[in-house]
Amino acid sequence: MVSFESDYIAGAHPDILRRLAETNLEPLPGYGSDPYCERAKQKIRDCVGLPEAEVAFLAGGTQTNAVVISTLLSDWEGVLAAKTGHISSHEAGAIEYTGHEVLELPQRNGKIDPEDLRAYLTAYFADENHEHMTFPGMVYLSHPTEYGTLYSKAELQGISEICRQYSLPLYMDGARLAYGLMSRETDLSLREIAELCDVFYIGGTKVGALCGEAVVFTKGNMPKHFLTSVKKRGALLAKGRLLGVQFDALFTDDLYFRIGQHAIDMAEKLKQILAARGLPLSVQSPTNQQFVILENRQMEQLRDRIVFSFWEKYDETHTVVRFATGWSTTDSDLQALDDALSSLS
Amino acid sequence: MVSFESDYIAGAHPDILRRLAETNLEPLPGYGSDPYCERAKQKIRDCVGLPEAEVAFLAGGTQTNAVVISTLLSDWEGVLAAKTGHISSHEAGAIEYTGHEVLELPQRNGKIDPEDLRAYLTAYFADENHEHMTFPGMVYLSHPTEYGTLYSKAELQGISEICRQYSLPLYMDGARLAYGLMSRETDLSLREIAELCDVFYIGGTKVGALCGEAVVFTKGNMPKHFLTSVKKRGALLAKGRLLGVQFDALFTDDLYFRIGQHAIDMAEKLKQILAARGLPLSVQSPTNQQFVILENRQMEQLRDRIVFSFWEKYDETHTVVRFATGWSTTDSDLQALDDALSSLS
Amino acid sequence: MVSFESDYIAGAHPDILRRLAETNLEPLPGYGSDPYCERAKQKIRDCVGLPEAEVAFLAGGTQTNAVVISTLLSDWEGVLAAKTGHISSHEAGAIEYTGHEVLELPQRNGKIDPEDLRAYLTAYFADENHEHMTFPGMVYLSHPTEYGTLYSKAELQGISEICRQYSLPLYMDGARLAYGLMSRETDLSLREIAELCDVFYIGGTKVGALCGEAVVFTKGNMPKHFLTSVKKRGALLAKGRLLGVQFDALFTDDLYFRIGQHAIDMAEKLKQILAARGLPLSVQSPTNQQFVILENRQMEQLRDRIVFSFWEKYDETHTVVRFATGWSTTDSDLQALDDALSSLS
Amino acid sequence: MVSFESDYIAGAHPDILRRLAETNLEPLPGYGSDPYCERAKQKIRDCVGLPEAEVAFLAGGTQTNAVVISTLLSDWEGVLAAKTGHISSHEAGAIEYTGHEVLELPQRNGKIDPEDLRAYLTAYFADENHEHMTFPGMVYLSHPTEYGTLYSKAELQGISEICRQYSLPLYMDGARLAYGLMSRETDLSLREIAELCDVFYIGGTKVGALCGEAVVFTKGNMPKHFLTSVKKRGALLAKGRLLGVQFDALFTDDLYFRIGQHAIDMAEKLKQILAARGLPLSVQSPTNQQFVILENRQMEQLRDRIVFSFWEKYDETHTVVRFATGWSTTDSDLQALDDALSSLS
Repeated sequence: MVSFESDYIAGAHPDILRRLAETNLEPLPGYGSDPYCERAKQKIRDCVGLPEAEVAFLAGGTQTNAVVISTLLSDWEGVLAAKTGHISSHEAGAIEYTGHEVLELPQRNGKIDPEDLRAYLTAYFADENHEHMTFPGMVYLSHPTEYGTLYSKAELQGISEICRQYSLPLYMDGARLAYGLMSRETDLSLREIAELCDVFYIGGTKVGALCGEAVVFTKGNMPKHFLTSVKKRGALLAKGRLLGVQFDALFTDDLYFRIGQHAIDMAEKLKQILAARGLPLSVQSPTNQQFVILENRQMEQLRDRIVFSFWEKYDETHTVVRFATGWSTTDSDLQALDDALSSLS
Repeated sequence: MVSFESDYIAGAHPDILRRLAETNLEPLPGYGSDPYCERAKQKIRDCVGLPEAEVAFLAGGTQTNAVVISTLLSDWEGVLAAKTGHISSHEAGAIEYTGHEVLELPQRNGKIDPEDLRAYLTAYFADENHEHMTFPGMVYLSHPTEYGTLYSKAELQGISEICRQYSLPLYMDGARLAYGLMSRETDLSLREIAELCDVFYIGGTKVGALCGEAVVFTKGNMPKHFLTSVKKRGALLAKGRLLGVQFDALFTDDLYFRIGQHAIDMAEKLKQILAARGLPLSVQSPTNQQFVILENRQMEQLRDRIVFSFWEKYDETHTVVRFATGWSTTDSDLQALDDALSSLS
Repeated sequence: MVSFESDYIAGAHPDILRRLAETNLEPLPGYGSDPYCERAKQKIRDCVGLPEAEVAFLAGGTQTNAVVISTLLSDWEGVLAAKTGHISSHEAGAIEYTGHEVLELPQRNGKIDPEDLRAYLTAYFADENHEHMTFPGMVYLSHPTEYGTLYSKAELQGISEICRQYSLPLYMDGARLAYGLMSRETDLSLREIAELCDVFYIGGTKVGALCGEAVVFTKGNMPKHFLTSVKKRGALLAKGRLLGVQFDALFTDDLYFRIGQHAIDMAEKLKQILAARGLPLSVQSPTNQQFVILENRQMEQLRDRIVFSFWEKYDETHTVVRFATGWSTTDSDLQALDDALSSLS
Repeated sequence: MVSFESDYIAGAHPDILRRLAETNLEPLPGYGSDPYCERAKQKIRDCVGLPEAEVAFLAGGTQTNAVVISTLLSDWEGVLAAKTGHISSHEAGAIEYTGHEVLELPQRNGKIDPEDLRAYLTAYFADENHEHMTFPGMVYLSHPTEYGTLYSKAELQGISEICRQYSLPLYMDGARLAYGLMSRETDLSLREIAELCDVFYIGGTKVGALCGEAVVFTKGNMPKHFLTSVKKRGALLAKGRLLGVQFDALFTDDLYFRIGQHAIDMAEKLKQILAARGLPLSVQSPTNQQFVILENRQMEQLRDRIVFSFWEKYDETHTVVRFATGWSTTDSDLQALDDALSSLS
């Protein structure tokens, strides 16, 4: 059955799989100390334009968020995030499991508004009892957000400036970063993101890898003895090559960006199909996830032919569902969707 | 200087101090296994009308919340609380430190509205991805709330009914319970609270004790090996008698209720003084905490003569401050306040 | 350079890699709900002879230990392990990170002696203050151990019997289980292990997979809402297929056992080479890891031609080093080692 | 019944209780910001001879150990302690609950031997895989130890020197410090302890207070935002005065030392009584705890007249029991014990 369920429905991009096969027999040291990890790190440093950046590979997004946030925060600190941020709502309490609070900010289209951030910080430090409250210790945002939306350069600059004023590290969850970078509506480049953030990760799992995320510490701020902290959290892969080879491939011949471009192209066609069928979107997303409001009856009919994912109830008779494109989405997938939509009664 | 800073500005009620002195030389076993602890537990069981209830003593409120919540929740669960609940906002992340998330509900006058609770639970279980989200595992409320407000019997019944429908323990933070019970505007008795809640605590620190809170597990639901879990959290006092003797005194000759009554009487007089001076309240509180909106200039003047506490900024030129009464508040304290208010320019 | 550094120096066994490629384009649901995970679970259930067993896949060994132990223990409990157990000494405190203590037992050739276990439990429960001490809540052992040694059937039965007497789950870390099962000196079958243990894992990372361990809960004792607990620990892979396809391959046509057999055959030849060169072993290991005592001078010479791993200092002039065989070890690797040893001066 | 069960069988020393009563009505700010806390801190700074030392008050010993250790350790670190150290064996896993490992050293009469410490550290850093193991991050010792024994000046200097060489904070658990300082066999003064340790606590609970321990950070090394970390751990008392007034009393007119002296004098008499009755000690303790080997039959007889505490089984027919003296022990208590011993059959 044709699937738009997520951007992780398929295995690895063929170029990645090929490199795994080509390097498979080489005996390599473990735990990320192999030359492919080193080479991938160098390519990422070059690509983000920061020769001194430190890069680390982890297996998945929730793991990466928990490791990065818990190693960067001090004991008395929590992390600020939009109420709809992945760490706030969809990680089963993974941040709290590390002993730290997620301090929720309002969301606007899935984003933090710089003014809301400033207001929070101003109120916090104006409170004479603030030592009895969790200190804000870093800012988390996702780009694209959980709603597929993007920060503009001005918005990210605004947030970054406030973070520096308050000495708060700014952390970007880039699980789907490629789709933000290649969106037709973005004015933010990877180099600008690297400059404005203190740490961010370049998502692999949702951009063609079997698994893997590349964390970039941009300011010489990788936590001390990070390997030990990663091990302590059960997040250190013995065959670190699995991550190194994949990211080496992703950052060879612009594969990461080509995957992003393909998914965006498919998403734009998807939007046209949805618009032509008169199906309303619940949010304007310029990236690879599209959120559509379906009548419950239509939704049930469509489920027989197309895989998509439940997002949230809209009202008693409507539901918001998500269609995602990815490296493996084809024109014939889109055609099948269009056909299925045409036959809805 | 006359102080309305909090309900814990003074030491112990004289009756409590006297009992500590009278029993001081008796050699007693440690860790809460002494006869005073046993006697106090029995008096509390009698008073709440539950002969089978299990009672445990802890030293302070944040500690009690962390111990109770973390031992009652399962691994995959978090605790629901109003956004303004003490555990949400003023315990420096003590619940998260135990590895559990606080799931925030809207607050209305500091309270959880039963409808908001029901809406949350309905939406949670309707979400097809809810296994990726923290399960709601118990409901926390404070009575009186952080704003001095009280649940009506109908409201508490409503919440309790929803909790039972969803098999969620209902936990009441009774740090200031005496002031709720003796309020002129409550329709809830201690026995009704014990019936409607699965666990609650009877606060001592803020009701005349040097320290100490009495947790009541009403349904045979004290966590297994609770003493060991308390010890593991650093919360087991060697001289458990310190808590036992104090609660034995508090539940002898209705001392707990007399302290509550006195503070309420003083608070009612305080409200009259404030009203006579035309000072607006930021919330209508029927208990021992009163929240007054002062001009910043007035506030600074008053600070020279009276101790009170900052609550929150109201606007650029006004601040909400708190006046609290307690067992040690006297008519002459109120007179001093009235005098000080009269001389504000 | 020829490497005996570990049993995870190479990528995946070719049969595994082939299956990853063959299934790569299939659109599949995430988080382990795909048919390959289901099929692999069924094959494992069949293979261990427990139709009702519950199986879960995780990415690595330390992660698996932390997830299993922390979800099975109660709050007041710790896990008993040999002092040399992986969780005691080589996981950077991953168990303690979950809030639980590792209670150390003496080790004998890397193993727990049933009598030491019984003595510990007897003394613990005889101690009148034991409620102030961590309760023993489960027993952890590794098979093969960190020293390559194996439990006999009688030893495992002895430990299992004590565990059942005290209602302690018995957990076997099978990171290298294949090498234990195919050892020429074992009298324990996989079905017997499944019968005697309450939970164990079948290691993939060190037996030909890119990553992945299969946890088997043998007694209907998988923790409730395990997926959520896994997610909360950052251990849930979005592309669960990566684990399902690999274990499906490992349990097709006895691949898991053939890999084990090959590594054992290579290890036996390795032992002959070492013996012929008069190199003493620090421990008699019937599995794929061999621990050799080298003069420091020899060790440095050998390092120019062969990769192996440091184990521990033996004395001022000698070091224990480890040679490991695996699915990718070849006769020519052994020849190269023999040549290199022959030229040591 | 006459009791030697512990040094916390009685309430507060009368001088402490008197001061609590005298200050009871004073309105004071909370959370340790009152003048009695400040005064007590100053007296302690003077007494330990470190004008710049930072002092904090906590309620109990296990709590203090957990708070101090978890706020001083970095994420990747654990704490070294003797196998018989209180944190290793009798705190129900309180350190592990904070996410940190206790790294056990051998014990000799309850003490860490400097050579064992050096050997551990040498081996740890010589291990090429040590980044996969918990880093040793501080050294914990108790003085007196759990067996009543004392470090000599040379021993403490030896340990302190190693700690400084490896940049490890040295932390002394002084739950019974007064009895060490006033022992007839010590050559260590309080000022020397303050000089040699990086942090230590002066125990109050076991030296005449109702509760309370005073932590002394000797080198400007109090963790940043310590109050917030204390709050986060549920360890912040609202009525901080309870601790301040008690320590102010303990450090007025040498009360702390006089209590120690009295208990030591009583313990010396106790030793004479035991020796005269031919009862063997299991360890030579120069402090207020005496460990006596009793025949089980004698033990049962004695229990009818005297309260003491079980320590450990000695053999099938003998048990080690503990007699402790304290501020409230009287000559008539000793006479009652002697009488009871005389009548054992």
